[in-house]
Order: sequence, then C-alpha cells, then structure tokens
Amino acid sequence: MDLTQFRNQNDHFKIKAAPTSYDLGLKHREIKDRLAETMIAIKEEQRKLFADRRYGIVVVLQAMDAAGKDSLISHVFSQVNPGGLRVANFKRPSSTEMAHDYLWRVSAQLPERGEIGVLNRSHYEDVLVSRVHPELIAKAKLPGIDSVADVTPALFDQRYQDIVNYEQYLTHNGFVILKFFLHVSKAEQKQRFLARIEQPEKNWKFEQADINERRYWDDYQRAYQAAIRATSTKANPWYIIPADDKWTSRLIVARIMVERLKQLKLAFPVTAADQEKMMKAAMASLAKEKD
Amino acid sequence: MDLTQFRNQNDHFKIKAAPTSYDLGLKHREIKDRLAETMIAIKEEQRKLFADRRYGIVVVLQAMDAAGKDSLISHVFSQVNPGGLRVANFKRPSSTEMAHDYLWRVSAQLPERGEIGVLNRSHYEDVLVSRVHPELIAKAKLPGIDSVADVTPALFDQRYQDIVNYEQYLTHNGFVILKFFLHVSKAEQKQRFLARIEQPEKNWKFEQADINERRYWDDYQRAYQAAIRATSTKANPWYIIPADDKWTSRLIVARIMVERLKQLKLAFPVTAADQEKMMKAAMASLAKEKD
Repeated sequence: MDLTQFRNQNDHFKIKAAPTSYDLGLKHREIKDRLAETMIAIKEEQRKLFADRRYGIVVVLQAMDAAGKDSLISHVFSQVNPGGLRVANFKRPSSTEMAHDYLWRVSAQLPERGEIGVLNRSHYEDVLVSRVHPELIAKAKLPGIDSVADVTPALFDQRYQDIVNYEQYLTHNGFVILKFFLHVSKAEQKQRFLARIEQPEKNWKFEQADINERRYWDDYQRAYQAAIRATSTKANPWYIIPADDKWTSRLIVARIMVERLKQLKLAFPVTAADQEKMMKAAMASLAKEKD
Repeated sequence: MDLTQFRNQNDHFKIKAAPTSYDLGLKHREIKDRLAETMIAIKEEQRKLFADRRYGIVVVLQAMDAAGKDSLISHVFSQVNPGGLRVANFKRPSSTEMAHDYLWRVSAQLPERGEIGVLNRSHYEDVLVSRVHPELIAKAKLPGIDSVADVTPALFDQRYQDIVNYEQYLTHNGFVILKFFLHVSKAEQKQRFLARIEQPEKNWKFEQADINERRYWDDYQRAYQAAIRATSTKANPWYIIPADDKWTSRLIVARIMVERLKQLKLAFPVTAADQEKMMKAAMASLAKEKD
C-alpha cells in the first residue's frame, strides 16, 4: 500500500474529490491480522522512543461526529505501553479555557519527549467548529472582535498561520506531529447515528447536538478543506483517511504511524563511557553487599 | 484466590511480616492466561464505567525502585481503552511543583469520572521519600520549618491525616481509590539492578540514584510501614502485593481491580424518557433527509 496517496501537501486540496472509502483488497479478517502486526510494530518503536527520549509524537485526530476517532484510538494504541501514552479528549471549552489563548489547553496536555500523545480533537477545533459557528469566537471577548461580523476570513488566515508556526516550533523541540482527518461520508454518518439510536447499549453515545451539527455538514466540509489546505506543511502534513470502513481507516493510520516512527531511526541509547564507569562501580558496590 | 489477604486495614501492619512472594500454584504460562482473561474483564468494566460516568478510578502505585510498577502498568492496562485511561508518572518535583501544596500536582492529573487514572508514584512520595530525606521538606520553605530539625514525626502524622481526608473527599466525589504497594525483597531488587547493568538494552533504565537510594532501604521500609498503617481506611485500604515475581503481582493487582469494579455494579445507562423522545425525533429527522 502506497501511503503517500493519503498525505496532503498541496494548497488546492479538494475535500469532495477525496475518497471516503478505500479498497485494501483484503477481507476484514485479514485487515485485523495486519492491524495486529502493525500495533506490535508501533509498540516496538514506542519502547525505543521512550528509551531514546529525544522525540515526542503528537497524533492529531480530527473528524466529523461518528467518524470513528474514539474506537480508532482504542484499537491502534491498545498495544502501546499506557505509561508512555497520553490521550487528551478535547470537548467544548470551559470558561477558564475560553479566557486563555486557544493553544493553552492543548499545550498543557502535550506529551513529553519520549511519549506518544493523542489529541482527540485539538486546536483545530478553533478553526473548524469556530468557523462554522463564528458566534463562539465573538463570545470569547477578543480585542477587535465585538460581534460576529468581526469574525472574518482574515481572522482564520491569521489562525492558520499561527497554528503552522506553533507546530513548527514544536518540531524544533523534537515533536513529530501526525495529523489525521478521518474522512467519512454523510451517508455513513447517518447509518452510524441510526445505530446509536437503535442499539440500546449505544444510546448513551447519542446526543441531540450530533443531529444539530449534521445540519451544518457542508459548512464543516468547507472549514476542513480550508484548514487542511492552509496547515499542511512538508514537516507536518495532513493525512486524509477514508473512514467509511472503520477497520480500513485503523489500518491506514497505524501503517502511517509505523512508517513515520521508523523514519526517526530510533534505537536504544548507547551507553556512554561515564555511564559505563558508573555502572561498573554500582555493580562492585552491589557485589560487596552482605545480603 | 482470596484477595482479602492482600488488603491491609489495620494500624499495626508489619512490613517485615508481609510476604514478598506468593505461590499461586500456577505455571507462568497459566498465570499469563489468567491475566489475559482478567485484562479483558477490566476492559469490559471500563466500557461501562465510561458510559455510566458516575465513578472514577484512581489506582495508586507505590514501590521501591525496580519493583515492576512500569511493566505492571503496561501489562494490566493494555486492554483498557486508552481514551479513558490516564497514566501520570510522578518524578522529582519541579520548583514550581515544590512551591505549591504537595497534592496540587496530583490533583491536576486525576482522571475524570468515567475514567481510570493510574498514579505511578503519587502524593505518598511526600511521606515516603520526604520522610527518608527530610531535607527535601526543609528546602521547600514551609512555615515553621526552618531546618531539618523541624521535620518531626508530628509533621508526618499531620500529612497522613491530610491525605486520609483528601482521599475521603475524593470518595465523596465518586472516586474509588485503589492503593497498591508492590512489595519486593532487597535481594530481588539487587538481581533486577544487576540485570539492568548486564543487559545493554536495559542500561538506559539504570541510574546512579537507584544505588544511592538502596542504601536507605531500611528507612524506606519503615516509612512505608508507617504510611500504610496510617492511611489504610475502610473505604481506601492499601493492598500489599508480593512482587518478587512480576507475573504473580500483575495477576493479583488485576484481580483486585476487577473485583472492586464489579462491586460498583456498573451498567450501561438506561435511556431516560426524555432522551428516548429526543432520539425518536432525531430518527425521524434523519429519515426525512434526501441524501
């Protein structure tokens, strides 16, 4: 599978032309087996990442509702040592969060170097839901923004640039950012909402807000297209993942992760001479003990 | 296996009398199989915990170095959905953390209700390492504590009580606290340190500080004994886990977790009448769509 086909690196990305399904030419059973292997490979890379401590991984997951973000996290990262994994679920911002700059709450939840962080929704919400519902920005009391009329395209251009700069800064500090847009069709979302309504054990997942937001489908698609165009960079591109089939999207995301981790050529740290000396002394001291 | 034998609920706990090994009467292969089943059971309980949202689980892990905390986390929680799991690794406090009250950094990393949080080391460090090295408290500039001489047993009694009160408050707020002391022998620690020195791929785990702290073994044991005696309550007891065999300790911890989760009688929320009505309306609205 050529993974580069999912990577967006141009500024004329067309969301309508991007497929929401992809035929891997495999049965579900086979996809699950490949995913299992890939999860083990991610786990192996993570062990080295953790020992090496120079790089941190930031996985950004964005999607329309019911695209499968939550279950993707539970599948793709289930082999990873949870001690080196941080999953941050970003919901509607609190009033404290609203009173800060919009990167503040994200920054607070980033992984350390050596860890993998997963942002389940992210700072991109501030150019997505905030673009579809500009009243959210108007409410936030920003200088120069007194009403919805002040929330202009120029404001979002500024935000895109700020986000690109912030991610570049993170790159300078050893963080590798992998941005995934799980691209689901409107018809598939409908099926998943119906499943949440029809299956009693899924009822708790269903919210009125889901249906409300679905009415803004086209606005969201435009907002995604604009954000992806403006914030795909060479270092930190967006990956557009066909998400109408959950197993397919999980495998593609997992494969992209492994490939990126392997590019880092992670290895267990070689013991430096002074560490070697310290360890020899420690060994001698342990040997001298009486118990 | 009678799990109550590992639960401490009395104030005359004797650490020297507590076993560091335990014979499950099973081969490693069998223990692994049982652990795998238990991990699945934890995962199932977590799904309900997450949907139910009333309870949060706080797992406190304390132990001497090399007792197996990190690998226990990676084994026991590897089936749990990482989206509902927070592992917080507490290291030497930063100067910012030192300038706060000692529960501050712990509080900031607690799980939400619906989630499982694992504290890899915890607020107990402030009555353990701080008791062995009272200079750490003297450095923190607390009122009335101008030198090491002011760090008295009464100060720790006060801290134990504060911790008990804090945990009681968390209980009032829906948090279930499971406190595990992985109890390893001094001889077994020595073997594990030697392994870290002898096996190149484990070298990065070894620190000079490990050997330094080992010299304070007896002081640590006394500090653990005092802390466990003073902070085991009916609601939030300590569990003393024999940890000389890693697979045994993992299985015991996992079994205690499942048993405690089952006591909560978690279930998927029953859909309330108004939610039912909302869902019917949503279904009708989806059915009316043209696409």
